[in-house]
Amino acid sequence: MKNIQIVANGIYFPRKQIANEELENRLHLEKGYIEKRTGIKKRYYAIEETIEDMALEAVKNALSKAEKKENIGLIITATTSTNLLMPGISNYIQKTLELPPCICLDILAGCGGYINAFDIAKLYIDSGTIEKALIIGVDKLSEIIDKEDVGTAVVLSDGAGATLIAKDEENKKERMYVTHMQSDGEKNEILTYQYGQKLYMNGKEVYKYAITNTVKNIEGLLNKAKISLEDIKYIIPHQSNIKIMKAIATRLHIPMEKMYTNIQTRGNTFCASIPIALYDMQNEGLLKKGDKVILLGYGGGLNTGSILMEV
Amino acid sequence: MKNIQIVANGIYFPRKQIANEELENRLHLEKGYIEKRTGIKKRYYAIEETIEDMALEAVKNALSKAEKKENIGLIITATTSTNLLMPGISNYIQKTLELPPCICLDILAGCGGYINAFDIAKLYIDSGTIEKALIIGVDKLSEIIDKEDVGTAVVLSDGAGATLIAKDEENKKERMYVTHMQSDGEKNEILTYQYGQKLYMNGKEVYKYAITNTVKNIEGLLNKAKISLEDIKYIIPHQSNIKIMKAIATRLHIPMEKMYTNIQTRGNTFCASIPIALYDMQNEGLLKKGDKVILLGYGGGLNTGSILMEV
Repeated sequence: MKNIQIVANGIYFPRKQIANEELENRLHLEKGYIEKRTGIKKRYYAIEETIEDMALEAVKNALSKAEKKENIGLIITATTSTNLLMPGISNYIQKTLELPPCICLDILAGCGGYINAFDIAKLYIDSGTIEKALIIGVDKLSEIIDKEDVGTAVVLSDGAGATLIAKDEENKKERMYVTHMQSDGEKNEILTYQYGQKLYMNGKEVYKYAITNTVKNIEGLLNKAKISLEDIKYIIPHQSNIKIMKAIATRLHIPMEKMYTNIQTRGNTFCASIPIALYDMQNEGLLKKGDKVILLGYGGGLNTGSILMEV
Repeated sequence: MKNIQIVANGIYFPRKQIANEELENRLHLEKGYIEKRTGIKKRYYAIEETIEDMALEAVKNALSKAEKKENIGLIITATTSTNLLMPGISNYIQKTLELPPCICLDILAGCGGYINAFDIAKLYIDSGTIEKALIIGVDKLSEIIDKEDVGTAVVLSDGAGATLIAKDEENKKERMYVTHMQSDGEKNEILTYQYGQKLYMNGKEVYKYAITNTVKNIEGLLNKAKISLEDIKYIIPHQSNIKIMKAIATRLHIPMEKMYTNIQTRGNTFCASIPIALYDMQNEGLLKKGDKVILLGYGGGLNTGSILMEV
């Protein structure tokens, strides 16, 4: 296994912000209802931007901050709302930025698909096939939600996040990297999106799933890693809903300070939420070398996956 | 690196066969034109079957022939024509067959996406995370082609192939496994599919790409593997078009006997073509332990990828 480092993070949000007030008026909700119920103050709708525009801007943002950006061996994009079946978003980025030929692929693995993309990138670095990977999470949910459905319309946002990771040859000591990925389709009709239909979410059932399977997953992860939650600096969860994240923290018996949240100003951007969280945390100075963190993805599939890593 | 073995292959073709005659009549083509130009005698259109039905039947077919099918740790599906953005086809299979929780994801990587899916499965086995993987290639192209476009309508077919691979612990000697994957988007507008549009293919440009990039790719692969084409028993290419496959053989200076083709009766099924070829070759007794073969994917992206492996 090889050590990896996060070289740079980038994000992109659409120009158009949607305030709670606008949605509360349209959906005939009490003033303050949305923030109280979801923690969200605003969200973004891509009116002018395509999904590939957003992904591209997030990548440009990440690369603008990276000193060493040559030798990108893999571009991998996680999404649930792409229109680009072939060529995919990753190919679009490779072409538009005129990056040298590399492996490009997009993956569909539910709201937490960034976790799968990250892990595949790590495996490619471990195998010695590549040195660097661009991992992208992007979703344009405003286009696929039923705008009259309170459960999804108030929560979901458009956005993109990109992470450049690289083999870290400077640090000889092996850094921890453990994953635990579980897809269980038994009740997967509670969160679906098929092309030609609208996104469907049974909020009550998703809540139940999210607060139980994630906790089980993290217990399984810690078990594999043979460490305890006390050794973990942050859990960086998919930003689904503040109530879900609080319930997970309660069930794990950890203070909310340990559970990173930025949904308040970022909304729930599905596949983009974890790379956007990494970006915000880096900007806030929260990620320090040697810190152990857990990236936690969950959602449609139902796919639950976590990565314990030393940053 | 761990040794892997192909445990079982499965396929599914739709009930509805479309003879050349039917297309030649509809498209006002001379009798015999299609076979002469493409090598194809018939193709299959899924009228009653959904894409997930086809994938499921191919998996059932594979599993029916596998002695040891427990402990499947990964289900990965390559496609270019799915409607199931979330949950994906892999999740559908896990749920429908009531397989225990495992990693499920679908990938979009052009017509040769099975190559990427296979390689990801291999990496997961190498990493020790899983013991077995189900790799699926499926496409339902009849739904997305312009039925009046001769270039695609006569060539493309619907179908599914599934491969169960497993860590091979019996053979201690390391077996060769080398890959060479290259996505180059520079001219990727020659083969595209976006939701809401029809599949587009510029046949002339695709021909040019296919017969040059594949040859370069195989040269790169052999270089990496430090062996020559003489040591290779078969090249198992994506079944795009008999003319393309013949031109690749010519440029590689190998006889057509070394270039496996089944497009004559199977058509061009995009992501399904390589696993269907593996199935047919196994049934024909062409795959023998220790044989070195090259799986060769190419198509939309433009993604070109090859895997040299000892079966």
